[in-house]
Amino acid sequence: MNIKVGIIGATGHTGEELIGILLGHPYVSICGLYNTGKDPQVISQVFPKFKGRLDRVCKKADFKEIADKCDLIFLALPHTVSMDFTPKLLKINKKIIDLSADYRIKNTRVFEKFYGKKHKDNLGLRKAVYGLPEIYRNKIKHAKLVANPGCYPTAAILALAPLVSLGLVDNSSIIIDAKSGVSGAGKKLTKEFLFSEVAGNFSAYKVNTHQHMPEIELYLSRLASSKVKIKFVPHLLPINRGIIETIYVNKSHAAKGKNILGIFKSFYKNEPFIRIKEEGKFPKVSDVYETNYCDIGIKDCGDSVIIIAAIDNLSKGASGQAVQNMNIMYKIPETTGLL
Amino acid sequence: MNIKVGIIGATGHTGEELIGILLGHPYVSICGLYNTGKDPQVISQVFPKFKGRLDRVCKKADFKEIADKCDLIFLALPHTVSMDFTPKLLKINKKIIDLSADYRIKNTRVFEKFYGKKHKDNLGLRKAVYGLPEIYRNKIKHAKLVANPGCYPTAAILALAPLVSLGLVDNSSIIIDAKSGVSGAGKKLTKEFLFSEVAGNFSAYKVNTHQHMPEIELYLSRLASSKVKIKFVPHLLPINRGIIETIYVNKSHAAKGKNILGIFKSFYKNEPFIRIKEEGKFPKVSDVYETNYCDIGIKDCGDSVIIIAAIDNLSKGASGQAVQNMNIMYKIPETTGLL
Amino acid sequence: MNIKVGIIGATGHTGEELIGILLGHPYVSICGLYNTGKDPQVISQVFPKFKGRLDRVCKKADFKEIADKCDLIFLALPHTVSMDFTPKLLKINKKIIDLSADYRIKNTRVFEKFYGKKHKDNLGLRKAVYGLPEIYRNKIKHAKLVANPGCYPTAAILALAPLVSLGLVDNSSIIIDAKSGVSGAGKKLTKEFLFSEVAGNFSAYKVNTHQHMPEIELYLSRLASSKVKIKFVPHLLPINRGIIETIYVNKSHAAKGKNILGIFKSFYKNEPFIRIKEEGKFPKVSDVYETNYCDIGIKDCGDSVIIIAAIDNLSKGASGQAVQNMNIMYKIPETTGLL
Amino acid sequence: MNIKVGIIGATGHTGEELIGILLGHPYVSICGLYNTGKDPQVISQVFPKFKGRLDRVCKKADFKEIADKCDLIFLALPHTVSMDFTPKLLKINKKIIDLSADYRIKNTRVFEKFYGKKHKDNLGLRKAVYGLPEIYRNKIKHAKLVANPGCYPTAAILALAPLVSLGLVDNSSIIIDAKSGVSGAGKKLTKEFLFSEVAGNFSAYKVNTHQHMPEIELYLSRLASSKVKIKFVPHLLPINRGIIETIYVNKSHAAKGKNILGIFKSFYKNEPFIRIKEEGKFPKVSDVYETNYCDIGIKDCGDSVIIIAAIDNLSKGASGQAVQNMNIMYKIPETTGLL
Repeated sequence: MNIKVGIIGATGHTGEELIGILLGHPYVSICGLYNTGKDPQVISQVFPKFKGRLDRVCKKADFKEIADKCDLIFLALPHTVSMDFTPKLLKINKKIIDLSADYRIKNTRVFEKFYGKKHKDNLGLRKAVYGLPEIYRNKIKHAKLVANPGCYPTAAILALAPLVSLGLVDNSSIIIDAKSGVSGAGKKLTKEFLFSEVAGNFSAYKVNTHQHMPEIELYLSRLASSKVKIKFVPHLLPINRGIIETIYVNKSHAAKGKNILGIFKSFYKNEPFIRIKEEGKFPKVSDVYETNYCDIGIKDCGDSVIIIAAIDNLSKGASGQAVQNMNIMYKIPETTGLL
Repeated sequence: MNIKVGIIGATGHTGEELIGILLGHPYVSICGLYNTGKDPQVISQVFPKFKGRLDRVCKKADFKEIADKCDLIFLALPHTVSMDFTPKLLKINKKIIDLSADYRIKNTRVFEKFYGKKHKDNLGLRKAVYGLPEIYRNKIKHAKLVANPGCYPTAAILALAPLVSLGLVDNSSIIIDAKSGVSGAGKKLTKEFLFSEVAGNFSAYKVNTHQHMPEIELYLSRLASSKVKIKFVPHLLPINRGIIETIYVNKSHAAKGKNILGIFKSFYKNEPFIRIKEEGKFPKVSDVYETNYCDIGIKDCGDSVIIIAAIDNLSKGASGQAVQNMNIMYKIPETTGLL
Repeated sequence: MNIKVGIIGATGHTGEELIGILLGHPYVSICGLYNTGKDPQVISQVFPKFKGRLDRVCKKADFKEIADKCDLIFLALPHTVSMDFTPKLLKINKKIIDLSADYRIKNTRVFEKFYGKKHKDNLGLRKAVYGLPEIYRNKIKHAKLVANPGCYPTAAILALAPLVSLGLVDNSSIIIDAKSGVSGAGKKLTKEFLFSEVAGNFSAYKVNTHQHMPEIELYLSRLASSKVKIKFVPHLLPINRGIIETIYVNKSHAAKGKNILGIFKSFYKNEPFIRIKEEGKFPKVSDVYETNYCDIGIKDCGDSVIIIAAIDNLSKGASGQAVQNMNIMYKIPETTGLL
Repeated sequence: MNIKVGIIGATGHTGEELIGILLGHPYVSICGLYNTGKDPQVISQVFPKFKGRLDRVCKKADFKEIADKCDLIFLALPHTVSMDFTPKLLKINKKIIDLSADYRIKNTRVFEKFYGKKHKDNLGLRKAVYGLPEIYRNKIKHAKLVANPGCYPTAAILALAPLVSLGLVDNSSIIIDAKSGVSGAGKKLTKEFLFSEVAGNFSAYKVNTHQHMPEIELYLSRLASSKVKIKFVPHLLPINRGIIETIYVNKSHAAKGKNILGIFKSFYKNEPFIRIKEEGKFPKVSDVYETNYCDIGIKDCGDSVIIIAAIDNLSKGASGQAVQNMNIMYKIPETTGLL
């Protein structure tokens, strides 16, 4: 098997991470690196660590070349930019895994409210499959366009799916206190991401207004088969990568007397990338650092449950999960090329 | 005014911080530095930064010398050690500010459960005043023994006092998601506090079992005039100092329609060390770093409120607040010597 | 004594540090905060930590107001900007302490080569006294315009002055391997100062081409009474503040048999801000963090000497030293307001 | 090809790193994990990140089992401990790669002086080949016992080999200013490696007395065919992994007029893990992070040269290089399993 992939947006954090993973993938050839119209860039000058491993030029996306050389395209682009590329790529019959938010939210009014731009691609929205393998594996197998989940939603949905899908939670009680390393925000050159602002520091941001809220609520609502509203406060950690979400839920009546930890273990028993911690143990960022795992610890407090989930935001929260989705689409073992 | 102070436990984090603050205090002379029976230590060798500013020997506590030379003693000792010293110091009629947990919790069974040791000093427990100036200033004025609050409880109680004391909160709904720098744990030489374990990492610990829970619940219950139970998850930040607590509460019926931000501003309007953030603004660790401030931001979510409080755990959460208490006990301006 | 000071360039790193120091100075009133023509900024919004301590507007420099309200002006401006302000301030007879590089280098061709701009103020250059108190205290006493030294030069010159001024060093052998926290570079919004680039990272920059080289060489040459050429490699540390310089020199014939450590102790014996470490001890950044000290450790290797100097780049390397110079200019105790 | 490897000392930093690399190596089976006599430890409890990837017990080294199950043993032990194991392993005819210092220094008096213990294994010392592939590849091919180089020596010798071996350097002028992340020191539980001591801090240690000095001098002397003495100051960086060495040398007469950069490029032109930077470029820790590369930048200063080398101390400086050596010993492509 030789999957010929291209990456559009190869010079950002998720592009860099994708390149790193794909260079170690036994069935992949990187056949094209593209940017969004800037001057050509030698990728090993942008990322000196790739010197000698990938000495290729990243240039303006050229659909003719893509049509010839690539089977599958990863879109590692900023939000609201992917939807400019997707229709053209679908037209030339390429498989697409979009790491931006553009195809995750189905309601275009909600999209516009949170991302500040009108959605342009209704056809794509209808075709797109939400790329959370543990929940949507069967749909991903046949997808042409995968909307790779956001980093916060990946951890939140995986942490809540067992209880929410079984009706064991008071759906109005969900509180997600999330903490992320700075790479979660991409490579923005703003004062708030300077070393002098972040190092030794910590704070909340976008308190209960973050753009990942509607994404989490949408897919939890689907799992619950009823409307779920969450409270969500993200915080910026002085680390480069990693997410911890500490989640507080009240149990529903149906949950009384249930073995909560057992439910998690059973729900995820065949999942290669989900690890449930033993009672009294909780995950650290270092446990999942640079891996595609989601580690989950559970504290049953009687009437309520505290769930703590850890992922690497650049891997399971972005590029690792994208490769997991690719593996599923090509029917190769799901863990291929992934830690 | 010249307050002659001694510090027992001068070589720990809170001792170091106390020395730093007191060296800049215009009305204080440091007259004695003591440890708990180890060999004498030159304090400027333990802390080279004090070289030339305080070149004094820290030696075994000598009650005769203390009786002669000191007016007030700061106990900067580990938990369960202070109660060995306090009765002797009270007997020789010294004022005491205890930075340990020994005199905060009045129920000795609860103390034993959380601190693993039987309490030995009932008399001290009865005399001790809880040293949170914003709530207990009048009692502190006349106290002989001040139980200086814990770092997490300081931020939690200050963040919740306005709503809890006015009955505006569902007392069963309080969730405190707390994050602290490593100095909060003192200077323990354990693997978990090695640089290689903490840097680039993040995790929860003592999930809903931390020893500060009963302290928070006790003083919130007093403010509420009814039993308050909280949920509390502390996390370890990869920074040296600073605490952020993100607190989630459901409103009581009495709170409907109230201006929550206004209530906070009014409750703390004369407090020199409490700063309420404007709507939409939330505190960062850097705002309170090395200061005695507690900064509080509020998000009114309709049926619920999110409160975010920031303190420096070594200053307002320990040594700064201890000096604030000293200032109150000596009737000097409360902000003297403090940022 | 009440010194009425103004700060032009109050919103940068050195401005912030100056404000912090001056707020604790017993003889200073901050009478004006100025920027370089941007919109007015409430200083406590720029730096929330100053809320309640300094709630003043920072506005465009207004020379009429300065003439009325200020005795002394600190210029905390980028290089090549100070020389636009200095002549006007000298004309209205203000004392000036310039924290930029504009008046340190006397040779305008050298200045232009390293700072990329023609020098405009020859009169100022002639009047300016180099503000390194340990070497030029007597000149500073009577100065109208003080050129506050650069951070690297401060540590380098203090570390080398005893040996160089006594002719104990082979002047062609001096190698300075310097490491600085990121605040040394000011508040530039460039990719290289993002948290994601600096954290967990380390590298050299401007290898043997840094603009502080001619400054170091000029003042060492004056001390040596002969031309001194150095090798100088600065590195960027993943910390906010602090400089360590590891300096390697070969001894001259005159140094053979001399007690090198004794020479340092004797040279600096009356200096309040210089601390010479005992044999076998070397300074850490934490020893001088947020202080005005320069700590120096010495290793005599027989034919050569290794000297290691530590300063806080924002304090002794910038704002602290500026205040030390102010104290000297006003004949108040040199350590006033300084740690 | 299936190389059956065992690791003695699997729970330290280099053991952890070895496991991580070997799990991704296509021709290796990890057949035994051993410690030095402590209780058995489940390796995925020691390192939760390996949960699901390597769930094996690490137990006391059992030579009978090793004889049966393993072809090659990695000794990831503290210094002076390896020499207890090596003779027994040689006796049962196992290949050995020793990551400790025990077989690097051939002079047992020098060993004893720097490592504080008498050397016990003269036979091993004679058999051991120094495992720096770029210099000793041919000897490594046939070695039974490889002494894997120290981290500082790896970078230093690789940086200096081209000039020293060609006689282009004044051998008495070599100064190595080295900076390392904390993992270089292994997992010692001492105060100096606590987060609170390291974070935001920086300092030199073992100034010109470090135990890697005789190792560097020995192998440089061999390259020079004459005695080389260096000056060497290591520093502790507040990062987990990575080394930068800034090296200053004076040229010999033979070097005048030579193209220094060209000499480096030519010397290393066939080396897969050495990357020479273009003129004016210098390596960062991030360029080599978690890779087996050694990146080298060169500044020709006329009479002298500044060489800056970067490696990852746990990979090229320890476990990665050990795997590179294993690949050579088994005649498989040298880069197999390595980044």
